[in-house]
Amino acid sequence: MAARGTAANGPHVLRQMNVAAVLTALREAESATTSVSGLATATGLSRPAVTRALGGLRDRGLVEFTSPNSSPQPGRPAQYARFRAEAGHVAGIDIGPHKVLVAIADLGGRVLTVHRATVDAGADGLRLFGTVRAALTTAVAEAGVPLSALWAVTVGTPGIVDRERGEVLLAPSIPGWAGLPAVTRLRDWLHCPVSIDNDVNLAVLAERRPEAGAENLVFVQWGRRIGCGIIIGGRPYRGHSAAAGELGFIDLASGPDAPPGPRAPDGTGPFERLAGAAAIHRLALEAGAPAGDEDDIAPLFEAAAAGDRAATEVVERVAARFARGLAALLLVLDPDRVVIGGGVSRAGDVLLEPVRRHLRRHALVPVAVHPSALGERAVALGAVRHSLDVVEDRIQGTPHDGT
Amino acid sequence: MAARGTAANGPHVLRQMNVAAVLTALREAESATTSVSGLATATGLSRPAVTRALGGLRDRGLVEFTSPNSSPQPGRPAQYARFRAEAGHVAGIDIGPHKVLVAIADLGGRVLTVHRATVDAGADGLRLFGTVRAALTTAVAEAGVPLSALWAVTVGTPGIVDRERGEVLLAPSIPGWAGLPAVTRLRDWLHCPVSIDNDVNLAVLAERRPEAGAENLVFVQWGRRIGCGIIIGGRPYRGHSAAAGELGFIDLASGPDAPPGPRAPDGTGPFERLAGAAAIHRLALEAGAPAGDEDDIAPLFEAAAAGDRAATEVVERVAARFARGLAALLLVLDPDRVVIGGGVSRAGDVLLEPVRRHLRRHALVPVAVHPSALGERAVALGAVRHSLDVVEDRIQGTPHDGT
Repeated sequence: MAARGTAANGPHVLRQMNVAAVLTALREAESATTSVSGLATATGLSRPAVTRALGGLRDRGLVEFTSPNSSPQPGRPAQYARFRAEAGHVAGIDIGPHKVLVAIADLGGRVLTVHRATVDAGADGLRLFGTVRAALTTAVAEAGVPLSALWAVTVGTPGIVDRERGEVLLAPSIPGWAGLPAVTRLRDWLHCPVSIDNDVNLAVLAERRPEAGAENLVFVQWGRRIGCGIIIGGRPYRGHSAAAGELGFIDLASGPDAPPGPRAPDGTGPFERLAGAAAIHRLALEAGAPAGDEDDIAPLFEAAAAGDRAATEVVERVAARFARGLAALLLVLDPDRVVIGGGVSRAGDVLLEPVRRHLRRHALVPVAVHPSALGERAVALGAVRHSLDVVEDRIQGTPHDGT
Repeated sequence: MAARGTAANGPHVLRQMNVAAVLTALREAESATTSVSGLATATGLSRPAVTRALGGLRDRGLVEFTSPNSSPQPGRPAQYARFRAEAGHVAGIDIGPHKVLVAIADLGGRVLTVHRATVDAGADGLRLFGTVRAALTTAVAEAGVPLSALWAVTVGTPGIVDRERGEVLLAPSIPGWAGLPAVTRLRDWLHCPVSIDNDVNLAVLAERRPEAGAENLVFVQWGRRIGCGIIIGGRPYRGHSAAAGELGFIDLASGPDAPPGPRAPDGTGPFERLAGAAAIHRLALEAGAPAGDEDDIAPLFEAAAAGDRAATEVVERVAARFARGLAALLLVLDPDRVVIGGGVSRAGDVLLEPVRRHLRRHALVPVAVHPSALGERAVALGAVRHSLDVVEDRIQGTPHDGT
């Protein structure tokens, strides 16, 4: 039999589980305040166990006790507790080649502000880092809290990331960004836990439905680059070398016996060169369809939606190409749900409907394909979710386990 | 914050965890018998807790107490316990279109026998079921135990399987097999838990390294069909519709804008028709290389190993095709390890070495690609592992959670 047993670690573990249960019940309660007996019912814990857990949370500023607003009962007054979401704040930062987006939320997950800063074309890693500091300073000011109110910060960035060391190993789209000790510098400045992860790995967190539990979810970023973030069993999946979800490098470009092409100098993969935003722009130009410019191909999709024949044919071709690559991903993972984000996805159903149609010809089982509702905020909001997970694990006394 | 807290379920859960910990320590102990204090040290539990867990296990016939063989200490004699691996047995059954393989093991996982029965060409589901019963009867006799000694049986079969209902939904390679209530019939006959799963999902269990913990592992079956079993975080991953790992349906066959071909009448997928055993046989014939016959293409690989130029060219072409499809899988999953099994993989390094070479041109990060050492026994041995997991979960009082 496989060795799977785990020794019980005694009452300390139980106490942490109790704190977690009470915290969850407090936050999920329909009213702002909850009675001790209400929490006991919700958690299945004894009243003394609930009171003990609440006491620990109050000592850390996370809970305050209040008297009930109305109808006091005769006899011993019921104690009411409130989760102090305003006790701390977290930040999520999306760092891209063209922009920095900072989201600030309270401990209850309420997003107070999303601040956007433009990055100058050709800015190097150091300049970019300066932009990040300035954007974060502005964002906390917009949220009305000091920098010292941040309990956790998470940074999302393109490229392959060493999360342990807090470094970007490879980021072809941002010169001078790889190798910069960004996390260390932010941590020295902020004095709170700072995490870094690949941007799509964070975006998928924002698309997760907590109520869906152990769902299997894929978030596909479809822009100039094509990549995906993967949730398996409700938890982020990154692979052995943090290189899972590299859909952009699947090679469908040529016949079965053609050799793979040389590595592209811009670091793009074969599927990106086939179906990424730049490829779509080129296809539109070649077909004489409205093409917009490389950074904004919306005119192509607007023309297709208006019935332009050349634009429709280009969209059809793009959808067929994308569906074939997406099918490879779905045949491997068979997820519950696929969310498509990134700039190209903003085209909406004029593009996604033909994608779904082509997908049916490749797939073995149906899968739901939805556009992301979060737009360009997906990465920053996912980074906020990650920061909240870090805070939650700290509250429960367990170091964040890296997922 | 995401709701993740779990209410403690009290001492009952702890007792089950203790039983699991004691059982694991007993089985992993270097000597056949272990003292109560040795178990207390290994598990971190108190002596009374160990004694209580051992008592429960003895009552179920799983543990016996012995006196120490040598050097009795003065004072109270130490109690020694032994895990009774012979208390029960499990079976793993691999049902394929051409053969039925039955493995019998004791509760310690020691395989006592593997019995092979040939299935007549063109046998339908009912005939196949008769063969399974006869093979299982013979196998337990070979192992020297009665049918009633089986505590759990697991069946592996090609196709898409509804594990809950115990039915095969789709199995193009075995006529009349889909829809047959195979599990119900076996359960009625055997009076023990009977599970069914897709064959490659079970094969990957046999390749799992328990000591590797939460590893990410892919087992690719490379024969006439191409599919894979996936382990993520140490647990089988099957996807939303039990359709994960369908590598054989990835479409690399034509140019980027070619439409997908029609569904093949034999139910094979595009990648199977490109790189499966039948395609390799055809390529060898076309090239005038030694081709063997459709069911045994070993002569092609033997000729390539001996330096035959035409055979070498065919092998090179096959390796390039397979690497491109395998790369799609690896770019999505980035697993720790890949094991290649199935008939084609028996070619060994004369085929796998060029596969690895081509793979390096597609992959972003290196991955270890090994041939399976289990040959055609992988599915039956994986089914044994699954049966042992079912037994273990029963011993711990938790229903098997379906993974």
